[in-house]
Amino acid sequence: MPQQYPPDHTKAGIDAAISELVIANRILAREDVIDDFGHVSLRHPFDPGRYFLSRSRSPANVTRDDILEFDLDGNLLGNDHRSPYRERAIHGEIYRARPDVNAVTHHHARSVLPFTMTQEPPLKPVFHMGSVIGTRIDTWDSQDEFGDTNMLVETAEQGASLARVLGRNRVALLRAHGAVCAMPTLRQVCMVSIYLKENAELFLNALQITRPGYISEGEARLASETLLNDLCVDRAWDYWTARAGFAGL
Amino acid sequence: MPQQYPPDHTKAGIDAAISELVIANRILAREDVIDDFGHVSLRHPFDPGRYFLSRSRSPANVTRDDILEFDLDGNLLGNDHRSPYRERAIHGEIYRARPDVNAVTHHHARSVLPFTMTQEPPLKPVFHMGSVIGTRIDTWDSQDEFGDTNMLVETAEQGASLARVLGRNRVALLRAHGAVCAMPTLRQVCMVSIYLKENAELFLNALQITRPGYISEGEARLASETLLNDLCVDRAWDYWTARAGFAGL
Amino acid sequence: MPQQYPPDHTKAGIDAAISELVIANRILAREDVIDDFGHVSLRHPFDPGRYFLSRSRSPANVTRDDILEFDLDGNLLGNDHRSPYRERAIHGEIYRARPDVNAVTHHHARSVLPFTMTQEPPLKPVFHMGSVIGTRIDTWDSQDEFGDTNMLVETAEQGASLARVLGRNRVALLRAHGAVCAMPTLRQVCMVSIYLKENAELFLNALQITRPGYISEGEARLASETLLNDLCVDRAWDYWTARAGFAGL
Amino acid sequence: MPQQYPPDHTKAGIDAAISELVIANRILAREDVIDDFGHVSLRHPFDPGRYFLSRSRSPANVTRDDILEFDLDGNLLGNDHRSPYRERAIHGEIYRARPDVNAVTHHHARSVLPFTMTQEPPLKPVFHMGSVIGTRIDTWDSQDEFGDTNMLVETAEQGASLARVLGRNRVALLRAHGAVCAMPTLRQVCMVSIYLKENAELFLNALQITRPGYISEGEARLASETLLNDLCVDRAWDYWTARAGFAGL
Repeated sequence: MPQQYPPDHTKAGIDAAISELVIANRILAREDVIDDFGHVSLRHPFDPGRYFLSRSRSPANVTRDDILEFDLDGNLLGNDHRSPYRERAIHGEIYRARPDVNAVTHHHARSVLPFTMTQEPPLKPVFHMGSVIGTRIDTWDSQDEFGDTNMLVETAEQGASLARVLGRNRVALLRAHGAVCAMPTLRQVCMVSIYLKENAELFLNALQITRPGYISEGEARLASETLLNDLCVDRAWDYWTARAGFAGL
Repeated sequence: MPQQYPPDHTKAGIDAAISELVIANRILAREDVIDDFGHVSLRHPFDPGRYFLSRSRSPANVTRDDILEFDLDGNLLGNDHRSPYRERAIHGEIYRARPDVNAVTHHHARSVLPFTMTQEPPLKPVFHMGSVIGTRIDTWDSQDEFGDTNMLVETAEQGASLARVLGRNRVALLRAHGAVCAMPTLRQVCMVSIYLKENAELFLNALQITRPGYISEGEARLASETLLNDLCVDRAWDYWTARAGFAGL
Repeated sequence: MPQQYPPDHTKAGIDAAISELVIANRILAREDVIDDFGHVSLRHPFDPGRYFLSRSRSPANVTRDDILEFDLDGNLLGNDHRSPYRERAIHGEIYRARPDVNAVTHHHARSVLPFTMTQEPPLKPVFHMGSVIGTRIDTWDSQDEFGDTNMLVETAEQGASLARVLGRNRVALLRAHGAVCAMPTLRQVCMVSIYLKENAELFLNALQITRPGYISEGEARLASETLLNDLCVDRAWDYWTARAGFAGL
Repeated sequence: MPQQYPPDHTKAGIDAAISELVIANRILAREDVIDDFGHVSLRHPFDPGRYFLSRSRSPANVTRDDILEFDLDGNLLGNDHRSPYRERAIHGEIYRARPDVNAVTHHHARSVLPFTMTQEPPLKPVFHMGSVIGTRIDTWDSQDEFGDTNMLVETAEQGASLARVLGRNRVALLRAHGAVCAMPTLRQVCMVSIYLKENAELFLNALQITRPGYISEGEARLASETLLNDLCVDRAWDYWTARAGFAGL
């Protein structure tokens, strides 16, 4: 697949995209969304058939030098031979199924995990900030199509199966495993990932009193529109970057 | 609105007020009352028709240069054109309704949120330090007057409605959204905001055993009088400033 | 009360005692036993009728210069006129009632508070390290003798009443307020204070499953004897000092 | 017991083993598995009848100079006379009973403790990462053979009794006390120890909703095989070392 980007701003655009991806790795680690495992990817800004993803490394430690480039089948492009993540099929198959999506996270945020193990209550927005996760979140169970496995999403078939459960939504859960989040921009996918964790924590805390109500469908739609626009997302990004040690970026 | 302050100590007084407001921003972030969203304002020390509030920025990152000046209608004074917070109507309308109030916070402290979603049990003081929040806290529900919205307090009508629910109290809750705290001084509003969070956390922890009793009305009044005087508030301020990175101030 | 200490090692002994007290202040703050309020005192090493205690300052910020000297009636000795803690009657009255005690803490550790609000279950050791708190902990209720107050222990009568409830035990709770811990040495009172907090946290966590059993009286006695000897206490002190920023002391 | 190691790479191999052991001490402290008490040991790389273990010191503070060498009876080798841990019989007796084991931890991770106090529910893997702890974990109760004790594992008889309860498993619990983990490599025992804590935390959180299901035996076996291989263990080790302050090692 020959590279045919516009000659003049190609390199600067790719450099900026990779910088943002490194920052997103560090943010998601700092905000306790991702720990030693889990990852975040970004679709190539000029070629929708490719994406960027770190080599097999914990996001807290990722630097520019760790970012690799893959096609949607998960083939590593270029001559780099360092080990990639085993679960990169998650990213390729979601990008294939969802042209509107340009950034994907996969993580095991601890507060979200209980909701991957139970049918009830469904994980939906319980406060205004939680609206960004959307009002429908389905759970992919690897047992349904694949039986006993190592529970990882390692094959294209598994990735495609997960992408079908994600559907048009922003978030899907993986039974006894974790979550995926998929959004048009990298900053948005960070917000959705972080507030998925926050909404789940708050849900668990509220259960100490009683099962909380959800915000209404209308509220979720209107609040989400406000919160996912640039004014709010960039304010949060400014906050997260400072906390992750990139103040002034 | 021409400025007619006493000529000699005007600038020094305003400078000191703005410094305290910056410190309050950083304290409330450090103490996990406010995160990427939420804000704190201070009424102008010489003009009760104005107040200071950061531009749209997370309190953890706020510096002197971010502080803007507004009239009670939320109009930005001066030639600054940076984006203000969308919810500044909270501040203007509380200052309008409550001449005794000179400092206001709005936040989404996680331990408080469960109490915004449930009718029972009411959030009231369960330990002596919790007395500072007062013994009556009502909940404003944006649905009551405004139906489905983005849940933010963006219009003067919404701000005035919230101020009516706050009434003469120190704290009001916003359904599935957060809280506002209003006090005569900036240091007091920090204490009320922080102990609102602490009292709610303790309440949730106690629920793991049983529903806790409240301290008596008499205890709440007497303890609050002691804790909100300068000896206690300044000791706490000395503690919070050091933790927020301003040791020696 | 004239000072008649042995002339040669008096000053060095007092200096060392004050250093340990400063470190204890910082340790209890670092370990989240004490926050903006709460305090720790040490009986004078050469005069049992006196004790050392910081001026009214949060323990996290205490330095040598903040340490004051009091008699058991709470009178400030010397010419220092800085404000003392309002609740110093706790310390004087416990030292008066308990000649075996040389160090006292008063704190509001959050995990302990729920047990000050409920009759059941009693706070007793649920794991081996918890044995250091002793197997009997009674609760002092300021209502019993004093009715509605500001809930602080401000008078000699209140301090003496609390000391009676403490009795011969290591720990007493204060209803909806906090705890006191009293031990022969400063390092031991730090261990008891920290493991009181830990035992309470663990108790609350276990309640998420079921009400936990207690360790037996025999186990509590034997484990406590082992854990309060120098080998264990000094290992823990080495750990706490490093965490509090005094590595190498 | 004369030393007869291969002459050329003996010292380098031992030096490297001791470095890894120091790092493991600091990792387990940083990840809140071990606090002031608890320990981690490594079997001697060239002599299966010996093991390395710190002197009696909190793992957070351990340096190379603290590492001592013991035979399986717990005798201190060499002329070092610093105090060893009282519970070293845990290590010697597990190494004696389990030739496949080369690294052992003993700790009191707070989330694990509730499961040491209750019969139900058994602590088993509730998410894919938890698979590394194995699907059978038994509890050793010091009362069964030894009655009231100080609850520590101080004699060879107690150590051997505990090793029998551990059996062929990776983890055993100690009633109202803590846990032991035993694995072929030091990095694996860190992973098992950390994910034992994580699995227990998650279990407790899930109980706020309902009692969670376990992953299947087949899933546990397959996931564990994947997660305990070098690609995953080394990625986690790279993450833990950076967090513990050894970035770049």
